[in-house]
Amino acid sequence: MASGHLTFHHVQQAAGRLLGRSILTPLLRQPELDRDTGARVVVKPECLQRSGSFKYRGAFNALSRLTAEQRRAGVLAWSSGNHAQGVAAAAQELGITATIVMPQDAPRTKVDNTRAYGAEVVFYHRTRENREDVGRALAEARGATIIAPYDNYDVMAGQGTCGLEIAEQARARDITLDVLLVCCGGGGLSAGVATAMQHLSPGTELWAVEPEHFDDHARSLHSGRREQNKPGNTSICDALLAPSPGELTFEINRQLLTGALTVSDAQVRRAMRYAFSRLKLVVEPGGAVALAALLENSRFQGCTVGVIISGGNVDPALFADIIRAPD
Amino acid sequence: MASGHLTFHHVQQAAGRLLGRSILTPLLRQPELDRDTGARVVVKPECLQRSGSFKYRGAFNALSRLTAEQRRAGVLAWSSGNHAQGVAAAAQELGITATIVMPQDAPRTKVDNTRAYGAEVVFYHRTRENREDVGRALAEARGATIIAPYDNYDVMAGQGTCGLEIAEQARARDITLDVLLVCCGGGGLSAGVATAMQHLSPGTELWAVEPEHFDDHARSLHSGRREQNKPGNTSICDALLAPSPGELTFEINRQLLTGALTVSDAQVRRAMRYAFSRLKLVVEPGGAVALAALLENSRFQGCTVGVIISGGNVDPALFADIIRAPD
Repeated sequence: MASGHLTFHHVQQAAGRLLGRSILTPLLRQPELDRDTGARVVVKPECLQRSGSFKYRGAFNALSRLTAEQRRAGVLAWSSGNHAQGVAAAAQELGITATIVMPQDAPRTKVDNTRAYGAEVVFYHRTRENREDVGRALAEARGATIIAPYDNYDVMAGQGTCGLEIAEQARARDITLDVLLVCCGGGGLSAGVATAMQHLSPGTELWAVEPEHFDDHARSLHSGRREQNKPGNTSICDALLAPSPGELTFEINRQLLTGALTVSDAQVRRAMRYAFSRLKLVVEPGGAVALAALLENSRFQGCTVGVIISGGNVDPALFADIIRAPD
Repeated sequence: MASGHLTFHHVQQAAGRLLGRSILTPLLRQPELDRDTGARVVVKPECLQRSGSFKYRGAFNALSRLTAEQRRAGVLAWSSGNHAQGVAAAAQELGITATIVMPQDAPRTKVDNTRAYGAEVVFYHRTRENREDVGRALAEARGATIIAPYDNYDVMAGQGTCGLEIAEQARARDITLDVLLVCCGGGGLSAGVATAMQHLSPGTELWAVEPEHFDDHARSLHSGRREQNKPGNTSICDALLAPSPGELTFEINRQLLTGALTVSDAQVRRAMRYAFSRLKLVVEPGGAVALAALLENSRFQGCTVGVIISGGNVDPALFADIIRAPD
């Protein structure tokens, strides 16, 4: 059922399916952010999206394309938490049973929320087990359809609606983006957004932003092939810990992305504090990398820059620690 | 220079002055909030406004109406913090010198931000001194124009633009509000918003929401005269500690408000946690009272309800304590 490729038309179709389902998140401006960065900045806060991240978009689009038979048999997804919540929320809305395979060390908030959406959570061990193996075996046993977190064209098309909205909202305010900064894990959001922006705003540079030690897109864009992250690497950005660029996403991203930037955990924490104190937004670590890249880089001074804040699902204890720390 | 009364026309004029200056804050929907309250809810997040609260609106409108001579002599305001930041930010933008009289126990964040906007902060003791006496003496000595926090028609007209936006944003989405819940201290936001709503959405019930022990509007609306709060009362809602309804604001509010509701500190904390975990918004205690009233009252079930979140200027340490606490 999944589309075999991704075009702007698929993103438009996804937008039609999501109408009245996903939240049309606003495009925010804050003069202080302009002053602090020397850029003209618009922020797309997907932390305000249903399920607390952009992942609802792709999940709902993919689930709404299932056959009646597939819906009856249920869906299965593996996810560190945001795709889990997106799939669980979309499945609940569509009356589909969802099984979610999550790492044992996933943030408690994400586990609780996933269950609150009515999904069954099955844990795996992040370093000792392969989540795809666990997930595939379970899906086969249950006859469930796997909703891959990024290597799925319907998922990518759904994520692309975020870019479609940014382009339309910017145009409605006579803003032409020089640059758009996108948080990047497996590359699904980047691929979808890039597909939309290529059509609607082809002059906009698209930069993926990754956590330090998970700079697989930066290295892959350079080498031209899908580079791996070193197993055992860690980052505060639990949402962005994919082992390598997705196969399908990278085929798109290698053509459409301008480049990739990397930010450290300390920079991510600073960006989260900035979002708390200046933007009044609750942003999770992985959701803050694009903002961190803007705040830490002087290369965007004088530019009109879009920043996607991709999610806000963060444990209260971690958030409390981060905002209490001195800068 | 200040207007001698308040009409919808004044609110419209204020909206014209604020165009491109204040942030057109979005009108947010979140299906989970509907589910959790049994109402159809729209949220106006003024925590996303410049200076972190709606106060920028009134301050900018009032300052922009000063004569050239008044501008040269500077302005003075007394405030627990949000009006301070609003006046300081507007003054900085207009090149006006600002002196702010603040209580010694004002949240550190509010003091720091006020200074960051270039204003001079002069402290007074909340219980031992009368802030108006301190402010008036200082203003006279400096020849500065006093920008009262709520008993000023230009300030009220500016705050009213928040209501004007709500009415227009709701109408653009075919939403008719049965109820609008407004955070209430001195009554300036209520008076301005009520003036706008009376014109644009006369069928909407307008409820002021106050902290426990600061229910002066509730009692005043009942008795028909301006009741005082007991000196020495305390509340977590530092932004809403006015001793009584304003004289000018109450003349409007007594006619236009449907009633007033009261929430406890514990209910405010719960609302702040809800905003953190579900809405992904940073809300200060005083900014959360209207949301608290919605979450705690069953009377709004089945209604279409607007909620103003009036500010997000909260010290990180306090916010951390509140979000870490169990519900």
